[in-house]
Amino acid sequence: MPTQDPADTVTAAILVIGDEILSGRTQDTNIAAIAKFLGPKGIRVAEVRIVPDVEEEIVSAVNHLRGRYQYVFTTGGIGPTHDDITADAIARAFGTGISHHPEAVRRLEAHYSHTPGMLNEARMRMARIPHGATLVDNPVSKAPGFEIGNVFVMAGVPLIMAAMLESIGPKLTGGAPLLSVTVGSSVPEGVLADGLRIIAETESDVSIGSYPFFKGQRYGTSLVLRSQDAGRLRAVAARVAGLIESLGGTPEMDEVA
Amino acid sequence: MPTQDPADTVTAAILVIGDEILSGRTQDTNIAAIAKFLGPKGIRVAEVRIVPDVEEEIVSAVNHLRGRYQYVFTTGGIGPTHDDITADAIARAFGTGISHHPEAVRRLEAHYSHTPGMLNEARMRMARIPHGATLVDNPVSKAPGFEIGNVFVMAGVPLIMAAMLESIGPKLTGGAPLLSVTVGSSVPEGVLADGLRIIAETESDVSIGSYPFFKGQRYGTSLVLRSQDAGRLRAVAARVAGLIESLGGTPEMDEVA
Repeated sequence: MPTQDPADTVTAAILVIGDEILSGRTQDTNIAAIAKFLGPKGIRVAEVRIVPDVEEEIVSAVNHLRGRYQYVFTTGGIGPTHDDITADAIARAFGTGISHHPEAVRRLEAHYSHTPGMLNEARMRMARIPHGATLVDNPVSKAPGFEIGNVFVMAGVPLIMAAMLESIGPKLTGGAPLLSVTVGSSVPEGVLADGLRIIAETESDVSIGSYPFFKGQRYGTSLVLRSQDAGRLRAVAARVAGLIESLGGTPEMDEVA
Repeated sequence: MPTQDPADTVTAAILVIGDEILSGRTQDTNIAAIAKFLGPKGIRVAEVRIVPDVEEEIVSAVNHLRGRYQYVFTTGGIGPTHDDITADAIARAFGTGISHHPEAVRRLEAHYSHTPGMLNEARMRMARIPHGATLVDNPVSKAPGFEIGNVFVMAGVPLIMAAMLESIGPKLTGGAPLLSVTVGSSVPEGVLADGLRIIAETESDVSIGSYPFFKGQRYGTSLVLRSQDAGRLRAVAARVAGLIESLGGTPEMDEVA
């Protein structure tokens, strides 16, 4: 059970938009990539939702999440095809209009200028941006994402999503980063659990997650300790290491980071 | 934009429980595995949520999802440690009690009988099951999942989750399976999009998803057509193949499955 968030914790939600993720056809990797990008900035991903390419589902999820968390990051549905409906859904969620954004049009014109006819009606749709939004740069394929209110709208293709996230980074204000340290050993989770519960209860300012692992022939438990306070992390990690030793294990601890 | 679900479509939601997924430390693979297991049974995953190890978040998500979809599948949080709170949260969501389930206790006693002391208090916690629930077999490590109402509660470790899913399979009632066919080509999404929109609008009983791909040096677009009707899928796939050829591409089509 995690400790209460400190008062200065900044939280975010991720909204993944796409039938291909829900069907299992495409394995999502964006959720973990976004979470790992935000963590060191002191922004904790507190909820994720995956919804289909259905406008009312997107609108409803965006409006719930943007009211509850400081930031919302969406992925998917901003390409040129008929099933790319994210921009329209976001406009509707914010009760604003949508039309071709002059700077977005300019970027697409420049990108496709080498071949006449390349910038067709479908590709021009990628320049449709809700009114009041600011563009998010796409250094890979130029068609921009956008930022409106506390919502950042990004592409679903992981390479493009990662580039957009980099360009969003400087705009984000995080809290004190949550530091972590992992203490691993070959002691099974079930053997550690009783002692661990006592530590978790008495050191309740440090959250402790317990994750069994199976690596090749080796199995054991990784204990992930999280806190904003490096000193407290080291103290509780030492106590956890002591528990592991008392149970005949050899604790392996990485650096606090 | 997908077509409306046929009246006999059976829908499911997945609820992933775990700080380690939200932090990005662990890459989830259960969502895609569950979706791929359910699809051929005619059960469509319509929504996914990922929530932290916080009881009120689990309760709230379970109660929302079980009211909206025919089935809910949860993963994570049923191990022996202090951060495994799923069983208690599910009991609370259903307004029922929770205690050690005799058959679950029997299975753990048999599993740990070879070494005295192995079945400690923490491991015995894995036999705590909400009242009114039915056990879900765990052929891997014995500690069972459970089924209550329309909610199936499974482990988070992918190997164990997959084994539980197999044992749940025969209990599920699906609709007519959604068949699919993929038509791929090296024609870029933006070139296909205008023609594809017309096909999607006039053949609105078949859903068409468009996904750009990058494989090594090769890039192009995969068009995924879905319908319960194999004949309609073949007809619309032929029309999509014709569009690709008219744009100078070579369509590659797999079998309807």
